Amino acid sequence: MISLPAISTSAPHWAQALLHPRSVALVGISDDMTKTAARPLAFLRRAGFAGRIYPVNPSRATVQGEPAFPSLSALPEVPDHAFILTGTQAAITTVEECGRLGIPVATILAGGFSEAGPEGAVNEMWLKEVARRHGVRVLGPSSIGVANLKEKLILTANAAFSEPDLPVGSVFVGSHSGSLIGALLSRGKARGVGFAGLVSVGAESDLSMGEICAATLDDPEITGYLLFIETMRHADTLQAFALQAAQRGKPVAAYKLGRSPEAAELAVSHTGALAGADDIADTFLRECGIARVESFEGLIDILPLLQRLPSSPRHRAPTVGVVTTTGGGAAMVVDQLAIRGVSVVAPSDATRERLAAAGVDGGHGRIVDLTLAGTRYDVMKATLDVMLKAPEFDLVLATVGSSARFQPDLAVKPLVDTARTHERPFAAFVVPDAPNALLHLAAAGIPNFRSPETCGDVIAAAFSRRPPRPDLPLLEPSYATSGPARMLDEAEAYDLFRSVGITHAPVALVAPGTDIPELPFPYPVVAKVLDANIAHKTDVGGVVLGIQDQAALARAIEDIRRTVEARRPDTSVSRILVQPMQRGLGEALIGLRRDPQVGPIVILAAGGVFTELYHDRALRLAPVDRDGARAMIQEVRAMKIFAGYRGKPRGDLDALTDAIVAVSRLAALRDQVVLDAEINPVLILPEGEGVVAVDALVRVAEYAR
Amino acid sequence: MISLPAISTSAPHWAQALLHPRSVALVGISDDMTKTAARPLAFLRRAGFAGRIYPVNPSRATVQGEPAFPSLSALPEVPDHAFILTGTQAAITTVEECGRLGIPVATILAGGFSEAGPEGAVNEMWLKEVARRHGVRVLGPSSIGVANLKEKLILTANAAFSEPDLPVGSVFVGSHSGSLIGALLSRGKARGVGFAGLVSVGAESDLSMGEICAATLDDPEITGYLLFIETMRHADTLQAFALQAAQRGKPVAAYKLGRSPEAAELAVSHTGALAGADDIADTFLRECGIARVESFEGLIDILPLLQRLPSSPRHRAPTVGVVTTTGGGAAMVVDQLAIRGVSVVAPSDATRERLAAAGVDGGHGRIVDLTLAGTRYDVMKATLDVMLKAPEFDLVLATVGSSARFQPDLAVKPLVDTARTHERPFAAFVVPDAPNALLHLAAAGIPNFRSPETCGDVIAAAFSRRPPRPDLPLLEPSYATSGPARMLDEAEAYDLFRSVGITHAPVALVAPGTDIPELPFPYPVVAKVLDANIAHKTDVGGVVLGIQDQAALARAIEDIRRTVEARRPDTSVSRILVQPMQRGLGEALIGLRRDPQVGPIVILAAGGVFTELYHDRALRLAPVDRDGARAMIQEVRAMKIFAGYRGKPRGDLDALTDAIVAVSRLAALRDQVVLDAEINPVLILPEGEGVVAVDALVRVAEYAR
Repeated sequence: MISLPAISTSAPHWAQALLHPRSVALVGISDDMTKTAARPLAFLRRAGFAGRIYPVNPSRATVQGEPAFPSLSALPEVPDHAFILTGTQAAITTVEECGRLGIPVATILAGGFSEAGPEGAVNEMWLKEVARRHGVRVLGPSSIGVANLKEKLILTANAAFSEPDLPVGSVFVGSHSGSLIGALLSRGKARGVGFAGLVSVGAESDLSMGEICAATLDDPEITGYLLFIETMRHADTLQAFALQAAQRGKPVAAYKLGRSPEAAELAVSHTGALAGADDIADTFLRECGIARVESFEGLIDILPLLQRLPSSPRHRAPTVGVVTTTGGGAAMVVDQLAIRGVSVVAPSDATRERLAAAGVDGGHGRIVDLTLAGTRYDVMKATLDVMLKAPEFDLVLATVGSSARFQPDLAVKPLVDTARTHERPFAAFVVPDAPNALLHLAAAGIPNFRSPETCGDVIAAAFSRRPPRPDLPLLEPSYATSGPARMLDEAEAYDLFRSVGITHAPVALVAPGTDIPELPFPYPVVAKVLDANIAHKTDVGGVVLGIQDQAALARAIEDIRRTVEARRPDTSVSRILVQPMQRGLGEALIGLRRDPQVGPIVILAAGGVFTELYHDRALRLAPVDRDGARAMIQEVRAMKIFAGYRGKPRGDLDALTDAIVAVSRLAALRDQVVLDAEINPVLILPEGEGVVAVDALVRVAEYAR
Repeated sequence: MISLPAISTSAPHWAQALLHPRSVALVGISDDMTKTAARPLAFLRRAGFAGRIYPVNPSRATVQGEPAFPSLSALPEVPDHAFILTGTQAAITTVEECGRLGIPVATILAGGFSEAGPEGAVNEMWLKEVARRHGVRVLGPSSIGVANLKEKLILTANAAFSEPDLPVGSVFVGSHSGSLIGALLSRGKARGVGFAGLVSVGAESDLSMGEICAATLDDPEITGYLLFIETMRHADTLQAFALQAAQRGKPVAAYKLGRSPEAAELAVSHTGALAGADDIADTFLRECGIARVESFEGLIDILPLLQRLPSSPRHRAPTVGVVTTTGGGAAMVVDQLAIRGVSVVAPSDATRERLAAAGVDGGHGRIVDLTLAGTRYDVMKATLDVMLKAPEFDLVLATVGSSARFQPDLAVKPLVDTARTHERPFAAFVVPDAPNALLHLAAAGIPNFRSPETCGDVIAAAFSRRPPRPDLPLLEPSYATSGPARMLDEAEAYDLFRSVGITHAPVALVAPGTDIPELPFPYPVVAKVLDANIAHKTDVGGVVLGIQDQAALARAIEDIRRTVEARRPDTSVSRILVQPMQRGLGEALIGLRRDPQVGPIVILAAGGVFTELYHDRALRLAPVDRDGARAMIQEVRAMKIFAGYRGKPRGDLDALTDAIVAVSRLAALRDQVVLDAEINPVLILPEGEGVVAVDALVRVAEYAR
């Protein structure tokens, strides 16, 4: 049922043709230099691409002063890679031509595919079929192209690549947005970040971001990856890439759009209001070991820190030591770190003694404030030497003041020299506008920040990074079901939960109009309509609480029957579920759902109205083990109530842990596909007394055989 | 009791001497150019200050090649302003000398005052006394100085002012941090922001940020203010300044440290855990009409937008229209706006028609995406012309792509030309690294942003700005009380709340050991120990709930007596308060407290454990009117439960509004000072049935007569 996506990392043929072509064809290249479709030829020539370049334009003998070919078939050889600059329909026929000629890779600039409504969707189906039939791998559509800076392959229409002195380096970029590869290029250059390659993956109708990045993992000159993600398409290949990158120690960072509800469009289900797409993506990226930054500038800034700060499981909150020449500048960073859960801690007594022995007066506060003395080389260097040996800091941050602007080399020299002699992670925040100081720091490999917010963002993201968990469930590219999805009724749902070890409130079934039997539990009780087609029982008058005796139960059952049948004329109420009224110390919600992008996820939420009002919930890819479940309980703020909060009695969080693990395992049942499963609420009883499901919803389907 | 702080805005004598001196003395100026204390003379000379400069140094005949004077009394005239660069003790004696000589203003660089522990506090008392006795106004201590760029008065030791070509302009800066005036100077210069003056206000032992800024309000060349705030010292003068600035239409923006709990150190009280210092400061700044940015870069970016976007009460959520040439770049900004509550809305049908008539294809989505066509002048210009006439947008934001980097003037020309012919607010986000495009935009007065996060921050802060409310309570500089603070017992507290119109649960008092009287309300009841010294009754076993009859009440009273006296051996339980068990639809907390910085504030919080777990609360300066109270109810997320949430019955939010107003008025009682007052919980009954206080805590003191 679960299988590793078929990705070879010994760069496959298509990857050679995509990123290292010996020859490229530019189909539809324009002679009009004001046109986008004119750019790739100019860029390739200006950069000095050493491979062969074939302009293809059926209506011109020359393009930009070079002889043009009327068609791909007129070329003197079969090129490795065709960049198709034509409109939508011509692009599809050109891919077909590529297939016939044996051109392995085609990049499509045009839009007009699935993003363009039903007609576009037809185009995309046609494109996929043509590509599949002829064995052409397609980048795009809506790809602005690809650049391999080391090989001067500037095969893109992005205007940013008219940049003189392109910043060549070791970073590889994958981006859903074509324009953003240009923005990253220029912003990286301004900050001393160089690139090995940048790929606009477009709509990923065939080649995905994950596949392309994975195909570069064996390139020793690529040391890290930056991803600009718009949606979680092809999470399976992204996951496979991330796992392999982690194995090779190559850090991956991502900026993902869609923090806002405006951008989050989720398939509606019973828990639809709960799980916004963005926190699912967040969970997915984190569990894959990808560091997610919140700020766009953070994407440029983060890799040097990830390279110095290996991701490892941590058993205490991360700590930062701050050295500064400017109290105000350091205070901004302390604030930005603290609001993201990263503590700036004071030096230990031992560290203070070593600072004093080195002749350094750093004050007595949380930060080591050298004041203006810190602008002297020897004072800053001595301080950093001591701080970087202090075991209480996971990271040392130096804040650099005005001198960084006027003497950029001198101001950062103690930092650069420190970087040469210490392995331990440190970083620098530069308070004034001092672009040259930042470049000096970057050249020395020192993580450096020009804003306190980005500094806080990147350090928090780096500390949050964990290795992919050893038991990370591999994404199923898809699972096939047969027959329609089917809701279980509440009694069937309890049966399913009981089968994985979850306790539910005792149940008695009564048919309206029959005698009330002796119940196997005492009054007071609750009566609920039992019908798989009625998910929201209260809304149709299907629930009566606090029934005190047999006579009242008979009345309640009749009330339910009448009300539900009045409100839902298609329904005949044939069964009523009766349970004892139970109270716990409080409640929670445990859910399982299959996210269309990242697959099965398990949810723990505060329960009741607070789940929605406060978005108080934790997510994991399913299944989780007990450690994972315990971490989820830690993340849901309302669960503090059950952990001895303000002298309140403790709840049975061990039993809750077991229940989360059990629900998460429903994702892998072999006899049927559990599409959604939710216990809402699960009552949390006092320590040692367990947890009890008192309502349940399950939707299942059969596996296709 | 309340009086307007004594600030004259017709620049007083001290303000002339501080910011426009005709002559300055540099006391303790150093000849060693590596020393901080050498800088002011060099800066003044390099800048070409036209006034007279007197180096004062008792141990040298010349300083930096200029003749030095041995003391202030040896000068040929009485200078307007002495910048004292000596150590702590010498600074105090120099202020005394200033006083004897009639020098009106002294700026003190040294620290060693109240920030330096008990010994420093003595220094500060001494300094204040000396200054008061001699009538010298003091800037600092711990002030790095003051700069008036137009008059080339670079009277500061901040190294950033060695900048060639200082950026002269119309912005005035007040800062608690001395180093930050330098960072703002350089960062402003890089972004085309010019400054009229920058003042490091230091520890504000005498002259406060508010006083200094207010004294510049009549300067027609100053058009806006930027404040870097570390703590809310002297909130009274800051408030007075902000009100006067609003009257003159001069916008004020602030960056304030202390978002994090680490930075928030609040006096502890019963509601101490509730009200973090930072949200109090936030409330204060907002009610004063000061726009608070969250990002440091936002402080540099915000004034042009505030100048175009007048603060006015708004009755709908603000809306932004976005025009872009790059979908990815625009999506980042949409996301950043939306998470801050600012909606990007699609053009109306009418606007789309006008765009089509102008030959513009902007697509059909939420944003007007011109794609690469938007890089053409005529397309972008025509689009902006239409968008800026569309009534559905409060602000139009143009997103500019790669062309901004390579042809900065051409890329922003349609924007600059638009700014010339349209009054309505618009702004620009530049996606690539394009410093020159940003400078072109700044020169045209167009609010411009280099990061999507700052763009979102600044636009949200500008939209959140309101005029200071007409009934804004003026801060009492202090209120004097006589006698110690005294807790009221619960019955006395109810009396106080009843006197302002708040309903409480009926009360009967019973003495332990006496017969249980007939109660004026039915069982079940609750019994509570009644003792002003026991604030947390439950913690000492002082509360029994759900008492069903008279016999049970007698037992409960005896239990309470025994338990409380066992746990609190100093206590003799003489009175028990009995109330009916009441239930509402839910509960809330209403509180009044006197913040040491900003005075009386009223708090509405979610109540129960959720108040703390989710920090779900709203604050206002007290008193509030019904509109203010209603807005507070809107801000507390848990109050949604009472507003028809998911079909639940509505709570009596009108009565809650009245209760908030009533509690807030306790701040101004004439017969006693209410220090703290809290109803926790107030039960919220169904619509029309009111709200009921079921527990109350009040602490009072007498006014000094």
